[in-house]
Amino acid sequence: MRAYKAEIIAVGTELLLGQIANTNAQWLSKKLADYGIGVYFHGVVGDNLDRAKSLFTHAGERSDIIFVTGGLGPTDDDLTREAFQSISNKKMVEDNETIKKIERYFHKSNRQMTPNNRKQSLVFEDAQVLANSAGMAPGMIVEHNQKIWIFMPGVPREMKAIMTEHVLPYLQKELQLNEVIESRMLRFIGVGESQLEHELKDLIEKQQNPTIAPLASEGEVGLRLTAKASSKKEANDLINHIEKQVLDKVGAFFYGYDETSISKQVLNLLKNNNMTIAAAESLTGGKFSSDFVTNNGASEVFMGGVVCYSIKAKQDVLDVSSNVIEKFGTISRECAEEMAVKVSGKHASTFGISFTGVAGPDPSEGKEVGSVFISVYNRLTGESITKAYHFHGDRNAIRNRTVKKGFELLHNILNQ
Amino acid sequence: MRAYKAEIIAVGTELLLGQIANTNAQWLSKKLADYGIGVYFHGVVGDNLDRAKSLFTHAGERSDIIFVTGGLGPTDDDLTREAFQSISNKKMVEDNETIKKIERYFHKSNRQMTPNNRKQSLVFEDAQVLANSAGMAPGMIVEHNQKIWIFMPGVPREMKAIMTEHVLPYLQKELQLNEVIESRMLRFIGVGESQLEHELKDLIEKQQNPTIAPLASEGEVGLRLTAKASSKKEANDLINHIEKQVLDKVGAFFYGYDETSISKQVLNLLKNNNMTIAAAESLTGGKFSSDFVTNNGASEVFMGGVVCYSIKAKQDVLDVSSNVIEKFGTISRECAEEMAVKVSGKHASTFGISFTGVAGPDPSEGKEVGSVFISVYNRLTGESITKAYHFHGDRNAIRNRTVKKGFELLHNILNQ
Repeated sequence: MRAYKAEIIAVGTELLLGQIANTNAQWLSKKLADYGIGVYFHGVVGDNLDRAKSLFTHAGERSDIIFVTGGLGPTDDDLTREAFQSISNKKMVEDNETIKKIERYFHKSNRQMTPNNRKQSLVFEDAQVLANSAGMAPGMIVEHNQKIWIFMPGVPREMKAIMTEHVLPYLQKELQLNEVIESRMLRFIGVGESQLEHELKDLIEKQQNPTIAPLASEGEVGLRLTAKASSKKEANDLINHIEKQVLDKVGAFFYGYDETSISKQVLNLLKNNNMTIAAAESLTGGKFSSDFVTNNGASEVFMGGVVCYSIKAKQDVLDVSSNVIEKFGTISRECAEEMAVKVSGKHASTFGISFTGVAGPDPSEGKEVGSVFISVYNRLTGESITKAYHFHGDRNAIRNRTVKKGFELLHNILNQ
Repeated sequence: MRAYKAEIIAVGTELLLGQIANTNAQWLSKKLADYGIGVYFHGVVGDNLDRAKSLFTHAGERSDIIFVTGGLGPTDDDLTREAFQSISNKKMVEDNETIKKIERYFHKSNRQMTPNNRKQSLVFEDAQVLANSAGMAPGMIVEHNQKIWIFMPGVPREMKAIMTEHVLPYLQKELQLNEVIESRMLRFIGVGESQLEHELKDLIEKQQNPTIAPLASEGEVGLRLTAKASSKKEANDLINHIEKQVLDKVGAFFYGYDETSISKQVLNLLKNNNMTIAAAESLTGGKFSSDFVTNNGASEVFMGGVVCYSIKAKQDVLDVSSNVIEKFGTISRECAEEMAVKVSGKHASTFGISFTGVAGPDPSEGKEVGSVFISVYNRLTGESITKAYHFHGDRNAIRNRTVKKGFELLHNILNQ
């Protein structure tokens, strides 16, 4: 297969005004990546003839397949057809099927068809017309200067219908895509993006097939391995091979594949061991519990929790001894430990986890913003593991990092 | 004011692979529209030097102000600086402030600084360096061939911080934006977007200056009023005038302005009345508490909560009577009422609020997915208000709607 360069252009002033995000480009990019077609540029231009012409001209020079969404509607500012006509000199004709469809629609809804509605039926004379099962304006595939141009409406539902029903089968056939693309996401926690890349520098530098793409998000890192091959098995073999090399180096931080999350992994580990958990949350204010129960099946392992935001709640609801609070304060290793012990006792759960610290904006009990203690108590063994952290960022960044770290800690304990 | 042509470029292969949508371009476009700066193109290019150079070259030819997001990170594939250097021949130097900040970060978090981390401190010699209050890599404003180039990190939180703190004030000053744009968001809860638009049909149809833009989000609706005028006062007078007309029609659903949220309003109402609250959460699993404590100052009014996800927790931790649970079940008006009473007693808070119901995916105790009871108990008056709801959507949509409704209920009670 030739390496085709694809480009995606959206036409619409609403995008340049920020009224909507260009989710069409994201959807199309994902589909094309699955088909092994490389997307090299996205562009957005408003409903303006000259600027659309200029972007189309650049695209025609640098790309092999150009996807254009939007600007095929009935109103005067829909001018994708006109812009392409002015660079290609192609003739436009009315598409009979579309005219009939529009007439039927107006007849059925008892409304008068206005002249601009005919505009939606205009197609280039030599176009392959793509019926729109979700709306009026058809899509088109046109060749110009040995480049393939694919025009689709901007309404996501219509674009997706035309892509799925017509364009993808066309691409598969015309481009002879006999290559299979497989991709796998490896998920890591407890390691920064730069450290991970540093550890994998050799592999990343010589990557070709599979490719290795790191992707950082709040408190964790993903590594997407993507392989091209002539069969699914061959692609997966390539991925397995590189995955082994990756995990030999950074396996200590690996926690799962693809669509999983660290909270889901913790849930599964608890479930498989017939273990349960309860949470005592101070600075996190219920976020650990709330994140945990986003997962289906949480009720089997999550017994409940206490949001002991005030000192009073720590004492009266959770029975943390006033001794500990007076001697060490609520933001202390000792308080965290007792919170975890007490909450697991109250809920008769295998584990108790606790979070105490300073989310900010102001310091508390003489402790800096970002000081956090997390404790995990195992009621079966009577063992406590308590850790001190220092997180950066605003109030919510600190809370989010704290919760992620709690899941990481549990994951490491359960995986031992 | 001159009519400046702006262009927004995002650098990052993850966008071309469709892993994320280009929400930065949307956010920036909206901000620039508010400032009356026309955005003429959006572009996205991958982490590839030649293609980034080529897009930068086009942008430099056709636009006056070019915003570039992404590609300023520590890794080898972050090459925005290199691409711009190769078209501008500008020299790069390490920014001392940034180096110090990176060193402090690694020192504090007890991690090893790898050599690639220094890369984030590189800035163009003649750049105006924009401190990044939300991350490491600073932003930059650079002039080249009489065009203004503004570079910012791709992480949305960091980009927004730099835009708000540095770039928008710079633009206001440098471009002598003597047309003033003022904008105000009115926030409504307890009314759907279509009902709100229906009530305001006349106003919306004849809108010009100010413009009226409705914006729906999970369980609430916003109305953005934007006015242009030659002075701030004049713009605000225009907004005040239309706001009065809006509130005459739909004031019953209004809860606050601009960056507030319903949880923040509830917090303020409680604080102003020297009242406190505690929460007993079943299906919401801690989300009400967690949302509440995202607000600064929550500790003054939020006493704590109990996440009583299991029946056992409702009985043992919250002391809901087994009588009520046996007779009515845990998903009942009676159980909700007792949960609210009990949690306010435990935390000695003015109010107790409780949430019980079925988040799904499966029905529970013979109750349909989406059945929810919320109860608010006022310990001062001994009065309970308990409501039954039926929400639609998946597990998390139901939990989110439930929490929003809880805040709405509290808001209405406190506003009486």
